[in-house]
Amino acid sequence: MRNDGRLALGVDVGGTKTEIVLAGRGGRVVAEHRIPTEPEGGAAATLTRAAGAARAEFGGAFAEAVAVGVSVAGQVGPRGVLLGAPNLGWTGADVRGLAAKAFGIPATVANDVRAATWAEWRLGGGRGVRDLLVLFLGTGVGGGAVLGGRLLEGGDGVAGEFGHMTVVAGGRQCRCGNRGCLEAYCGGWGIEERAREAVLAHHAAGQPLIRAAGSADAITGESVAAALRAGDALATQLIDDTGGILGAALVGLVNGLNPRRVILGGGVMEGFPELLDRATAVVRARALPAAAARVDFVHAGLGDNAPSLGAADLALARLRTRRGSGDEKKS
Amino acid sequence: MRNDGRLALGVDVGGTKTEIVLAGRGGRVVAEHRIPTEPEGGAAATLTRAAGAARAEFGGAFAEAVAVGVSVAGQVGPRGVLLGAPNLGWTGADVRGLAAKAFGIPATVANDVRAATWAEWRLGGGRGVRDLLVLFLGTGVGGGAVLGGRLLEGGDGVAGEFGHMTVVAGGRQCRCGNRGCLEAYCGGWGIEERAREAVLAHHAAGQPLIRAAGSADAITGESVAAALRAGDALATQLIDDTGGILGAALVGLVNGLNPRRVILGGGVMEGFPELLDRATAVVRARALPAAAARVDFVHAGLGDNAPSLGAADLALARLRTRRGSGDEKKS
Repeated sequence: MRNDGRLALGVDVGGTKTEIVLAGRGGRVVAEHRIPTEPEGGAAATLTRAAGAARAEFGGAFAEAVAVGVSVAGQVGPRGVLLGAPNLGWTGADVRGLAAKAFGIPATVANDVRAATWAEWRLGGGRGVRDLLVLFLGTGVGGGAVLGGRLLEGGDGVAGEFGHMTVVAGGRQCRCGNRGCLEAYCGGWGIEERAREAVLAHHAAGQPLIRAAGSADAITGESVAAALRAGDALATQLIDDTGGILGAALVGLVNGLNPRRVILGGGVMEGFPELLDRATAVVRARALPAAAARVDFVHAGLGDNAPSLGAADLALARLRTRRGSGDEKKS
Repeated sequence: MRNDGRLALGVDVGGTKTEIVLAGRGGRVVAEHRIPTEPEGGAAATLTRAAGAARAEFGGAFAEAVAVGVSVAGQVGPRGVLLGAPNLGWTGADVRGLAAKAFGIPATVANDVRAATWAEWRLGGGRGVRDLLVLFLGTGVGGGAVLGGRLLEGGDGVAGEFGHMTVVAGGRQCRCGNRGCLEAYCGGWGIEERAREAVLAHHAAGQPLIRAAGSADAITGESVAAALRAGDALATQLIDDTGGILGAALVGLVNGLNPRRVILGGGVMEGFPELLDRATAVVRARALPAAAARVDFVHAGLGDNAPSLGAADLALARLRTRRGSGDEKKS
């Protein structure tokens, strides 16, 4: 991450907290700090508070940062203007301009999932891979890809919504309005909904899960994970099915994009790490041999600060691009 | 297609026929000729026969061709060696070397669907589009994409098998070994299988189709198309369902790749052109607004010689690359 000896700041603005990192070469975290996000105060105030906190917490090292990358859960337009950000409500905000002003250094803005994809590619388990697919399974499911050595952007800069690929046509209602999306089965909320339905549909088998959670409505991903660890049959079946759906989606992505590596991360993968082997087995059995022969599947390695680390590295990469060569062109 | 006033040859080697075009600027066909393919004679003999036929048929214009592009239904390795070609049986053949020798000019080799994608991008309805998705629905379903102004290749050069995306997890058995592939519903064979099953399952409604075809087993895409034109209720429902599945798959591709244009071609689209509007309506209703706001859906414009035209243009593009700049690297 340090480029010619330089450091960069990464600021991941989430709906409830803002994570700030000061990072050096290869994603080395020099310093980090978290503050609560108060999105209703607006983008300018939020970025000014973040800059003030970084200046106060990081001391003299703050001045070593030559660029700042901001990652947000939202759709980022080509000049760093937010085109949509449901959790923040800052549609239309010139986040790049505001960040540059608040931090006093060149700024770049990226969608948080794309920033995390960049981090896994440049600093994590995807290093050196030219054709890489990254899926993050949290409450929602999102992703990113590197194809032919370039970050997938899409015509409007919003590519990577692999959680909203139809994997069961006519299937479960997704929050996005489509039916049968990967997220509706394998996102955190999809798993919880399916667990609640399963305990009600299979009365006897559901009792242990209901008892552990207190009631069917109180079942969460955590209670499913606890039941699974305790050998509960219904939880075992549920997660087995979840892995089957994840695998079915990955068969399509492997056949369509022919990646060499697939990285799976996010809270669902941390809670149910066995999903990796289950989904991998489905791909091995069902994807086209030519497309799947050399792909491997690994857990994400960078954890929660992938977006902020990725944003910091993207900021440096784009700084280089403005000064000369390189592939990166956006915001 | 003419580059600095030059012409190129395109040779599309199919399992039963080989199409040869001599093409000029913008895909202008200067001359074309077809010969039967005799794949059992081997790659060298086939290419030698094709070169002989082109020399004889195209007369003096043959000598104007500065490069030849060969497209094949198979997996093409990085140096123009066939890694797999079920219909030809030429696995391991150095098609690039053999073509260069047979034609006496620099040769390039590409998968036929990728060559057709290139043709639609450079010479057809995808001109000027940097993020383009192309689906060909014939007996099988294949495709290609241009992402950020570059042809999608994949880690092993086999990306684009969008026909083998899972769209109904656990659904119909596909010929590829997976279940619920797009092809198993919307490929020519999938439509025919579904039609035969439907007439048997819905005895009364199926009688018109059975009578027209002679028997349930004799139902083909053509008989379904004829019944549809005659207002047959079962055929209408079948094609409506087919468009729904195609739309569901396109929702996923639009959300994942954020293309600006989708081109749909192949015999199924020619036989059932209404699939375009039906699938488009599904995408408009169900894809993420940010990903779908600016995408449009059009019929393929180049028809049957898209692979040979694309191969010819690829050959010229790669000739330019070897001499200097450009994005193309594979052969």
